[in-house]
Amino acid sequence: MPVKLNFKHLDLQLAHPWAIARTSGTNTAKVVVVELIAADGTVGLGEAAPVARYKESPKTVEAFLKKVDARGLTFSDVEGSMAYLETISKHDMSAKCALNLALLDGAAKKAKKPAYDLLGLGFREKQHVTSFTIGIDKPEVIRSKVQEAEPYPVLKMKVGVPDDKANLAALREVAPNKLIRVDANEGWKTKEQALEMIEWLAQDGHVQYIEQPLPASASAKDWVWLKQRSPLPIFADESYHSAEDIEEVAECFHGVNVKLVKTGGVSGGFAALQAARKAGLKTMIGCMIETSVLISAAAQLAELCDYMDVDGHVLITNDPYVGVTVKNGLVSFAEAREPFGLRVCLRS
Amino acid sequence: MPVKLNFKHLDLQLAHPWAIARTSGTNTAKVVVVELIAADGTVGLGEAAPVARYKESPKTVEAFLKKVDARGLTFSDVEGSMAYLETISKHDMSAKCALNLALLDGAAKKAKKPAYDLLGLGFREKQHVTSFTIGIDKPEVIRSKVQEAEPYPVLKMKVGVPDDKANLAALREVAPNKLIRVDANEGWKTKEQALEMIEWLAQDGHVQYIEQPLPASASAKDWVWLKQRSPLPIFADESYHSAEDIEEVAECFHGVNVKLVKTGGVSGGFAALQAARKAGLKTMIGCMIETSVLISAAAQLAELCDYMDVDGHVLITNDPYVGVTVKNGLVSFAEAREPFGLRVCLRS
Repeated sequence: MPVKLNFKHLDLQLAHPWAIARTSGTNTAKVVVVELIAADGTVGLGEAAPVARYKESPKTVEAFLKKVDARGLTFSDVEGSMAYLETISKHDMSAKCALNLALLDGAAKKAKKPAYDLLGLGFREKQHVTSFTIGIDKPEVIRSKVQEAEPYPVLKMKVGVPDDKANLAALREVAPNKLIRVDANEGWKTKEQALEMIEWLAQDGHVQYIEQPLPASASAKDWVWLKQRSPLPIFADESYHSAEDIEEVAECFHGVNVKLVKTGGVSGGFAALQAARKAGLKTMIGCMIETSVLISAAAQLAELCDYMDVDGHVLITNDPYVGVTVKNGLVSFAEAREPFGLRVCLRS
Repeated sequence: MPVKLNFKHLDLQLAHPWAIARTSGTNTAKVVVVELIAADGTVGLGEAAPVARYKESPKTVEAFLKKVDARGLTFSDVEGSMAYLETISKHDMSAKCALNLALLDGAAKKAKKPAYDLLGLGFREKQHVTSFTIGIDKPEVIRSKVQEAEPYPVLKMKVGVPDDKANLAALREVAPNKLIRVDANEGWKTKEQALEMIEWLAQDGHVQYIEQPLPASASAKDWVWLKQRSPLPIFADESYHSAEDIEEVAECFHGVNVKLVKTGGVSGGFAALQAARKAGLKTMIGCMIETSVLISAAAQLAELCDYMDVDGHVLITNDPYVGVTVKNGLVSFAEAREPFGLRVCLRS
């Protein structure tokens, strides 16, 4: 049974301006929400958070969606529908992600199951902890953000700029012993610089791991050099797109950060996490600035993750959707009003 | 290198009188702490929390310890030392537990590693959530205990008495939507009564699973009957002692509650959890009323557990030791002063 495809652009308002190593501050994030509607009225919801790093934008997402013949998509064959999308473009992962989410949402709603049960994973309510991310900012702003994040047991700190040391010092003034994860977003340029910074971070004593210390373009030789010497586990983010990358990544990293916008959705995310687990790597699932649609989709895979970073919907003030929540850092579907699919619906 | 063996009796003071289905209220719990001291001064700490259900008492623990020739124990061969203890008695699991903990503590201290690293498991700091247990009591006391337990995201409620319904109603007055796990401690006598009570519990909508609804002496046929019909997962506690029981338990239950006092320590607990995981069962680790020695030992196995119930040291007011802590339900070694072994030491 084919479906009808709608989409709309959304401007997400950020509670605080947001910056990471490779971008300056921004006040909004743009996403595209898609709806697949079957003839029986079943609606599948999905979301694309386009990634500038991969030359994606709301425009490229729209262009991809306009190429899709909705007759090629059906809730009764998610895999076949994804194979059809693959014939349209080898790239456009965030657009394919949106459609994969909507397909899975519809398929699970038709089966009258949460998607995590359809996938055979289950979900342990309030047994998963997410970090809360502190973007790059002035030390005084970091202090106040860390104060606001007091209920979160674990923070994720963005680094990779000249002020890293002042920024960590600001965080430590407010939260001297809080666990942190550090994300360099490819911010350090040589393996020697990365090692020096990781050695400095390790002295803090409360850093769990460091994400993507070098550009994804760094050679495997450089990564192996760094992996052998790093006093902290190093996780691949920009270096790990999908399960296909696992062989090289397993050699170069201790863990991976899987994101649905990189894997083209939950189906690809499942495969990327499973591949990493089989290779003996630690796993985490991450996010972009995004609504409860994408975050609820990521939470479906919680049982495959050692760590979670699913706070993208907490950073915005105008989330139109309600699904998974993260009170005190605990991931929960207790407030979700939709029992099936991705367990997300309009807040209305 | 043989060791010297010391032990002492401890009376643990309870913050509130404590009752479960098969015992009336008590204000103290009696444990025995053991120390193994090597010639080089390395001290291994262990603890026995004797289980009346298995005809154990501080006296039976002492009697067992007095039979032990400490020359048969060495930090350099935990397995061989345990094999020697097995020749003394097939029972006395809590006494053997105390010595297993002390042996492992000493072995890991000598290796300059936390025991969880010596076991190859690691420990994800503040990524594990423990429940907080509400014992059987009058409804007004239950209300105030549940209020006190506000920071805990998950509660464990003891049932198996005529007042179960009034007691759950009291809990729900204070915490209408909080997740709970229910422990019947063999309190229901027939499979029909158990099913009726579990169906009633399932209507609550926020119960995760039910432990030991029937006596361990119930037939496999009765358990299978109940497993097929139960709307909630049923976990074996009194029915699961060690890995040797796994075949029958996998047929009869959805999950297991492993306790170190039943498995004879961390080594046996590791095996019991692994056997359950391989059989496709859900796993939890539980505890008695006990000090931070036994609780820190249980926490070493966190990575093998789907659920944790390690609040035994929170329920007492005179814990002489400091190791693992459970702030807001999150299991953490951040406040432990001992970096190696079970990561527990005298509070002093």
